[in-house]
Amino acid sequence: MTTPLRLGIAGLGTVGAGVVKIVQGQADLLEARCGRPIRIAAVGARTRNRDRGVDLSPYGWEDDPVALAKRDDVDVYVELMGGSDGPAKASVEAALAAGKAVVTANKAMLALHGQALAEAADAAGVPLRFEAAVAGGIPCVKALLEGLAGNRVTRVMGVMNGTCNYILTRMEGAGLPYDDVFREALDLGYLEADPTLDVGGIDAGHKLAILSAIAFGQRVDFEGVTLQGIERVSIDDIRRAGDMGYRIKLLGVAQAGANGVEQSMRPTLVPADSPLGQLEGATNMVVIEGDAVGQIVLRGAGAGEGPTASAVMGDVCDIARGCAVPVFGVPAQTLAPARRAATASPHAHYLRLSLRDEPGALARVATILGEHGISIDRMRQYDHDGGDAPVLIVTHPCRPAELDAALGRIGDVPFVAGTPVALQIQGV
Amino acid sequence: MTTPLRLGIAGLGTVGAGVVKIVQGQADLLEARCGRPIRIAAVGARTRNRDRGVDLSPYGWEDDPVALAKRDDVDVYVELMGGSDGPAKASVEAALAAGKAVVTANKAMLALHGQALAEAADAAGVPLRFEAAVAGGIPCVKALLEGLAGNRVTRVMGVMNGTCNYILTRMEGAGLPYDDVFREALDLGYLEADPTLDVGGIDAGHKLAILSAIAFGQRVDFEGVTLQGIERVSIDDIRRAGDMGYRIKLLGVAQAGANGVEQSMRPTLVPADSPLGQLEGATNMVVIEGDAVGQIVLRGAGAGEGPTASAVMGDVCDIARGCAVPVFGVPAQTLAPARRAATASPHAHYLRLSLRDEPGALARVATILGEHGISIDRMRQYDHDGGDAPVLIVTHPCRPAELDAALGRIGDVPFVAGTPVALQIQGV
Repeated sequence: MTTPLRLGIAGLGTVGAGVVKIVQGQADLLEARCGRPIRIAAVGARTRNRDRGVDLSPYGWEDDPVALAKRDDVDVYVELMGGSDGPAKASVEAALAAGKAVVTANKAMLALHGQALAEAADAAGVPLRFEAAVAGGIPCVKALLEGLAGNRVTRVMGVMNGTCNYILTRMEGAGLPYDDVFREALDLGYLEADPTLDVGGIDAGHKLAILSAIAFGQRVDFEGVTLQGIERVSIDDIRRAGDMGYRIKLLGVAQAGANGVEQSMRPTLVPADSPLGQLEGATNMVVIEGDAVGQIVLRGAGAGEGPTASAVMGDVCDIARGCAVPVFGVPAQTLAPARRAATASPHAHYLRLSLRDEPGALARVATILGEHGISIDRMRQYDHDGGDAPVLIVTHPCRPAELDAALGRIGDVPFVAGTPVALQIQGV
Repeated sequence: MTTPLRLGIAGLGTVGAGVVKIVQGQADLLEARCGRPIRIAAVGARTRNRDRGVDLSPYGWEDDPVALAKRDDVDVYVELMGGSDGPAKASVEAALAAGKAVVTANKAMLALHGQALAEAADAAGVPLRFEAAVAGGIPCVKALLEGLAGNRVTRVMGVMNGTCNYILTRMEGAGLPYDDVFREALDLGYLEADPTLDVGGIDAGHKLAILSAIAFGQRVDFEGVTLQGIERVSIDDIRRAGDMGYRIKLLGVAQAGANGVEQSMRPTLVPADSPLGQLEGATNMVVIEGDAVGQIVLRGAGAGEGPTASAVMGDVCDIARGCAVPVFGVPAQTLAPARRAATASPHAHYLRLSLRDEPGALARVATILGEHGISIDRMRQYDHDGGDAPVLIVTHPCRPAELDAALGRIGDVPFVAGTPVALQIQGV
């Protein structure tokens, strides 16, 4: 089989240029590995005349991504524009309708429209692949879809937004408050045009929803992800968590329980000596747990030209080799409707309170917790130091609803200063 | 496509029984994911009447694995007997000759006969897959073959023998000498029937040679792996390395240089705070570095029923889905002959010497190192404590040949007690 596989690439930012570089620079290697040449037929982007560090003159040009997606000389439409709707979605739909395979890095589009697109791909009998949409260069989608296909997956976890992990580890390392590090990250160009996508956990939540669909064989349910950003993580909590042997990560957790799937993306304490706890800077990590394999940990760069282009090219090579796997692991029509767990499963929690220096204050807190069935695993009270005394509590596993009720009462009693902080602890 | 995929499973030890359990227990899931049922047609092992915790009565039985491999009702021959030659090799050859796909966990067979078997598979036009042969449940073969297919791989590293990592971390944790922990591991049943396969680095060397073939597109070259076991790692070195910020791992490294590929499996110092350095117990880790993706780290259980069966089933699912990838990533005939690097590339080294309490002793050592062009990065001399003083030296990168020459001279001088220890340091 020496028929070339012809790509149409929409979006020529960092990742698009990276893909062009690999196709140009590794042509022989790709042909040897795929059994056929990989060629670029045409490309397109918003601006034509811009130096992207690659020679685009051999390729056709399309201003309109829909036209690019439908070109006769394109076998695989590579969508690297981003945006959940608009041209990205319209062009992917057009490509699928025209019977083209699609490779995309677009997590927002898949998180919001994954089911419809998967059904369109199945109807057309073409692959729709998206390794680059989740955790950059880490081949975690492939691991879940294929390598671990013999497992009933029980839990997927991940630190999947490098910017957030950078901010949290930088706060800890430099002892700086969130606002200062956020401004640093902004100045360094680490943040999306809308920073809420990063620090609000939305981008990472998109990725979790995608992995979760594969893991549990149900329709992508981004709306079902409990989202909490890192904006309110304080340097105090980072320090105090460290005192107790934990680090705070923006952690995504999707797990299957008896009554449905729980998905959350929120600041979470993990043991400092666990692989997740040891993760520094912008690196990503995905943890997959299956009934047969136990725990698999995958770690690597979550963004950037090379890693993301590597993921795109892995998908392109699969298509060139004729490997076809259902979009989310099973035919889209058979994906179960999202079944959200009615009640959140119990977790250990970290609580931080400030107590005024009054006799019996600590006993009162412990009593309220006890009245809600929450037992204390460890507690540490610091010096009053002239003012309020920080108190740290690590609870035994308890349900968030019980904890909320208890915290509501604790927040109301007069010797508690400010609002108590509560963060989940994830055993890993 | 609802034609079942029919397996013939040879070898019903832990892994074989694990595969049967998954096929039986996850039948619906496997059918949904693969688009067709996975069935077991026949099985075989040395002993028929033994309780393996699974019901084998629905399946055909073959005493002779070659006969099993050739059965008309077998589509995929699953070889889980082990042994580089003998029945394993004969039956895999028979299966390929009969046009059956093969899945195997047999690292020794692939390390020694991988090229001939890959050519046989290509000639027959059938897949030969072996995820379970390397690092148990970690989908690292898939990552290299497929997920990272867009990369020129520059280096592959791995801790791929759980028993050795158990022994080394147990020595460190309990402060016990090698011989004691070796006997413990023996009593616990952690070692192969021939323990040299484990502690001599042979088993891990087989795995490295397999990954290396895929990574660098050359024929499997187990003979080209520089092998050193862990038998001579002392608790002293583990402690001293720790003092300098390192841990000792049985580390495999395969890297491509200008003049060929270097492969080694030997006790190596890695930074204590790196993912490799943080690896405890029997867990495995594979690190893959590519020109586009940067560094990817994969971690998981390297052995055991569930993890290994998970890897076997990943391969089975790929075959059921019709995914065909060349055995070592490119057609076997086009794999380059093994090109071994003529000279080993420079590495930082850890040296441990014992010096008698004589004036100028340390200066003499430093002078000899300097005369061989070896410069010292860090040095630490401990108390003489009445007798010989341990001296630790971390060198800047130097070539092993230069170091050997220097150590030869240092060993000869009278104030050096015993033989100097030298271990490579791998920056990770």
